[in-house]
Amino acid sequence: MPRPKVPLLSADRIADAALELVDSGRPFGVNALARALGVTPSSLYNHVSGRDEIIELIRGRIAAQYLPDLPEGTWDDVVASTMRAQRRMYAEHPNAIPLIVGKTITDPFTIASYDNLATGLLGAGFPEGEVLTVVAILDSFALGFGLDLASPDDIWQPQGPTQTLGRLLAGAERGAARSDRAFEEGLELLLDSLRLRLSRLREDD
Amino acid sequence: MPRPKVPLLSADRIADAALELVDSGRPFGVNALARALGVTPSSLYNHVSGRDEIIELIRGRIAAQYLPDLPEGTWDDVVASTMRAQRRMYAEHPNAIPLIVGKTITDPFTIASYDNLATGLLGAGFPEGEVLTVVAILDSFALGFGLDLASPDDIWQPQGPTQTLGRLLAGAERGAARSDRAFEEGLELLLDSLRLRLSRLREDD
Repeated sequence: MPRPKVPLLSADRIADAALELVDSGRPFGVNALARALGVTPSSLYNHVSGRDEIIELIRGRIAAQYLPDLPEGTWDDVVASTMRAQRRMYAEHPNAIPLIVGKTITDPFTIASYDNLATGLLGAGFPEGEVLTVVAILDSFALGFGLDLASPDDIWQPQGPTQTLGRLLAGAERGAARSDRAFEEGLELLLDSLRLRLSRLREDD
Repeated sequence: MPRPKVPLLSADRIADAALELVDSGRPFGVNALARALGVTPSSLYNHVSGRDEIIELIRGRIAAQYLPDLPEGTWDDVVASTMRAQRRMYAEHPNAIPLIVGKTITDPFTIASYDNLATGLLGAGFPEGEVLTVVAILDSFALGFGLDLASPDDIWQPQGPTQTLGRLLAGAERGAARSDRAFEEGLELLLDSLRLRLSRLREDD
């Protein structure tokens, strides 16, 4: 029997090709993805309902890689582990960010990661009405630092005199070392604030 | 005299068209921009040296709109005003984020805004070796919350049972109200941490 020209389509193959297309910086869409897979758009529509489902496949693919195990331990261990994993995930796929942040999350891996985080915060003593606010703060923090890690070794190159920035840059760390330090210090600042918030909540009881 | 078919190219017109192209989600590049402007790529190259310079024009265009005045006042006023303006800027141009965060900053408006922030932090008492770390923390925070504000009204839609997330979502705020509250509470948490850091530095003196 002759071999088929292209391997059969599957959710896995579609997810891989979609992530590769987005990472490359080329425009993302059903037609472009069909071309990348060497199939017609209508064959692709036999497997996915459209753009939204493909974005969820991309999210699921990177979540399964970076957030595979739900961290356990004290609530601050859960927060720190989740933030570190999310940051790395975003840093390695910065072009996917506008797509995945622009769409409601349904992917079960990603939902499980946020559910684990929310459960940890609730167990620590944050009131039900505050937990999702804290999750949003942590989420924004990880997202911003993912982009920070993906940014060039030199963030600023002033073209003229500055009051402070140019002088500080002259002796400053650069690249991943700079971003790693800022992320870990920022995480510690945030955790300190959250610990203080918890101790105040306990006093109010 | 016949009118020219297209207005003369200028840095302003190029910046406007580039930002419009990026905001639309269509692929960004010198050729696509030339098509959008109705000129040949070589006419465009008479005005800009290439992709990098166009990205800096985009950054300058949004910085001039959202960060026009350098905030004054106490260091925490400067931080809060800068964060609010940055967040709004990113939220309204989420597709520009991978481009502008992926390139070293040279735009004078943006440099002046960071220089003002660094000067405020140094004046408040943060040591020279810490100021850029604090700037990176604030920057990541504003960036992440810009994307949070640009995200859909519903962030999560669990497709099955969850431990905590589904229950919390049932009564939770949505959309911009949710994001605004989380941003302001996160900003307050961060400022509290930074104030505590400053008071510890003063004790060490």
